Amino acid sequence: MDFAPLSHVFPRTARVNARGRLEIGGMDCVDLAGEFGTPLYVFCEETLRGQCRDFLEAFGALQPDTLAVYAAKAYIGPALAQILQEEGMGLDVVSGGELAVAQAVGFPGERIHFHGNNKSREELEQALEYGVGHIVVDNLQELQVLDDLAAARGQVQPILLRITPGIDPHTHAHTTTGTLDSKFGLPLATGQAEEAIHKALASRNLDLVGLHFHLGSPIFELEPYAEAIDLVLSFAARFREEGLNLRQFSPGGGFAIAYLRSQRPPTPAEYAQTIVTALQQGCAAYGFPLPQLFIEPGRSITGPAAVALYTVGAVKEIPGVRTYAAVDGGMGDNIRPALYEAQYEAVAAGRMDAEPAGPVTIAGKYCESGDILVRDAQLPALQPGDLVAMPAAGAYAPSMASNYNLNARPAIVLVKDGRARLIRRRETPQDMMATDVWAAV
Amino acid sequence: MDFAPLSHVFPRTARVNARGRLEIGGMDCVDLAGEFGTPLYVFCEETLRGQCRDFLEAFGALQPDTLAVYAAKAYIGPALAQILQEEGMGLDVVSGGELAVAQAVGFPGERIHFHGNNKSREELEQALEYGVGHIVVDNLQELQVLDDLAAARGQVQPILLRITPGIDPHTHAHTTTGTLDSKFGLPLATGQAEEAIHKALASRNLDLVGLHFHLGSPIFELEPYAEAIDLVLSFAARFREEGLNLRQFSPGGGFAIAYLRSQRPPTPAEYAQTIVTALQQGCAAYGFPLPQLFIEPGRSITGPAAVALYTVGAVKEIPGVRTYAAVDGGMGDNIRPALYEAQYEAVAAGRMDAEPAGPVTIAGKYCESGDILVRDAQLPALQPGDLVAMPAAGAYAPSMASNYNLNARPAIVLVKDGRARLIRRRETPQDMMATDVWAAV
Repeated sequence: MDFAPLSHVFPRTARVNARGRLEIGGMDCVDLAGEFGTPLYVFCEETLRGQCRDFLEAFGALQPDTLAVYAAKAYIGPALAQILQEEGMGLDVVSGGELAVAQAVGFPGERIHFHGNNKSREELEQALEYGVGHIVVDNLQELQVLDDLAAARGQVQPILLRITPGIDPHTHAHTTTGTLDSKFGLPLATGQAEEAIHKALASRNLDLVGLHFHLGSPIFELEPYAEAIDLVLSFAARFREEGLNLRQFSPGGGFAIAYLRSQRPPTPAEYAQTIVTALQQGCAAYGFPLPQLFIEPGRSITGPAAVALYTVGAVKEIPGVRTYAAVDGGMGDNIRPALYEAQYEAVAAGRMDAEPAGPVTIAGKYCESGDILVRDAQLPALQPGDLVAMPAAGAYAPSMASNYNLNARPAIVLVKDGRARLIRRRETPQDMMATDVWAAV
Repeated sequence: MDFAPLSHVFPRTARVNARGRLEIGGMDCVDLAGEFGTPLYVFCEETLRGQCRDFLEAFGALQPDTLAVYAAKAYIGPALAQILQEEGMGLDVVSGGELAVAQAVGFPGERIHFHGNNKSREELEQALEYGVGHIVVDNLQELQVLDDLAAARGQVQPILLRITPGIDPHTHAHTTTGTLDSKFGLPLATGQAEEAIHKALASRNLDLVGLHFHLGSPIFELEPYAEAIDLVLSFAARFREEGLNLRQFSPGGGFAIAYLRSQRPPTPAEYAQTIVTALQQGCAAYGFPLPQLFIEPGRSITGPAAVALYTVGAVKEIPGVRTYAAVDGGMGDNIRPALYEAQYEAVAAGRMDAEPAGPVTIAGKYCESGDILVRDAQLPALQPGDLVAMPAAGAYAPSMASNYNLNARPAIVLVKDGRARLIRRRETPQDMMATDVWAAV
């Protein structure tokens, strides 16, 4: 099999080694499966750091005052948070749990943004206590609660307001967030954004430093960003006389990645070119100095960095219908195919030189027909024990994993220069019963 | 609001108390939320036990030799397993993790069935070690592996073969399992079922006691059961001369419940009537004595028993478009609306006497637009702090829960006669990092 047409979907260090096996970060995937078991998520440290640097450099070249804030919802853990911190990234958290991970590794508060459409009072308290750099206020009630909490603590909290521009980025309806009919943000169209700006400017405990919007994810088109930036800046200009001073500006994230060999999403440089140009033009047109730019890559940092490894069990050929190869993971570790009809590539990681023998459907081991990871992949004839690798698996897979069917959530390793470091161990049955309470018989 | 048209969707003990609040098992839901926090899953013990008894009695009246095997995938924990054991139920497990729960409470092995399309060698070993009553063999490879393992242990293992009859039960494609194009079972149409019967009959370590099929879930129609039973029995008759002795027979589960006030699924008596009649007629027609009957209710036991309680946070009215009330749970504790477009009822549990003021969309707190629990529910105008109850939430909600956004999975309480017992405590941030491995700075 020719790996070249697929290689851009895999981590940067992926190659086929002399034994005809997939290698990542200098580690043979068959060896990794042997050492750590499967299902296994393998994160390439070079890709993780490289993706951070590519975004920082691409945007920094056009707007040096840029902070890239990693969207933790894509996947976060303490070891990853440490890497992000080393790379100079910020961290976008959406819950007390994500903030707790940041706290566990001493992530600098000033580089943390707290997002979310329904932050609890306790979460806002936790954010104020830790000194989170920016809270991105979603709605008028939150604005009031946060104002009260900051006042009670005698703090002045920098905030951004999340504006709903009413623009459709043409992605899956589940992940489209910037349209008017959305649970997120303060709509421009209804006067709520305007009311929030007035209230925030009037508050002595909130420092309104700028505006944020988020269109959805993944966004393969550039034009929606430019359109939304112009719209939000033109709106902001109406409040300049009242004192709205756009020191910071966030057009969100949603940067796409290649899941399939046929996909060629915009590069960080292309996103940067569109976004910074629109920001510069809008600021010039509406009379703002150029603000600090926040971008929020999530999927685009961790997504391409990881490969999921599975071991084939039962293979079932239904002549004239379909061949199913069942693996030892599935919708419990990666819900995206069932939830979004997401598509993935798959390779036989232990026999990369074998030619495809026909379409094989990679089924999971969960008791649902919807538990299909890849439909009709071109693969060699699979046997029980074969190793299957699915690339572009680092974002929204481990982070959305469940214990459905009481299958353990997978282990995660970080590979680099021929070494593997376990950063999440596989769950045990005891872990899965850790919060259960019952009386021994 | 008139509770009567809704009451069949709620647990049996649900009523509106003198304070105008929803009460379950004699416990005021507002009090429960105050004591245990939200999101909270409240299981009514009377409903759990009552559903078990209804199925046992309805089938037992027509075929006294019936074992109802609860499908643990719907939701299992040690406390629930103890209740099921007390009620004389069996347990259908699909993983080593589910079997570990059974083991933790000493659930009798002979009443356990082990299902699944891709059981690992370790899981099969675990099942043999524990003395699981029946292993439901899905495919030819599993048959071989199990034969070898049983031989090595010097055991004779009773098995059922899972037959794929090729019948469509008209439910969601994700949960349709009995059609030919399925990852599950041994298709009748391809000769694989026949081959498996020959091999099983020839094995000295496997005791082929009967056949199993499963059509999907939830199934609101009765006719597919009758059709499939006849088809599988007529198929079985071809092997009677070879020694196929149908001592046991399982038409699976898939029994539907009412999620919405408009839904009136068949009663246990109606399912029993159809299934036992078809079994009697088929056995008479094809010359089999009446076998022991296994049925596999899962959703129909736990589904109606639980109500999910959420607290309202931000309320967002978008005039002319929609009103969103965001609650403190969502797709992380109940993925069904996003995954299957499942629909639920919702009530304002603290103000059950308030009249509906118009449609309200119950959104979750997860950072996705797809995180909507109930679209356009007829509810009173909701305020921050209001309690929302969603009935029919006991099956495929906690069991599929994730830590997406690093939100904790909910607590679960069991209520009965005015007392509440915590059977799963809420996760802490420490729980969510329990398997993470990192180096302290």
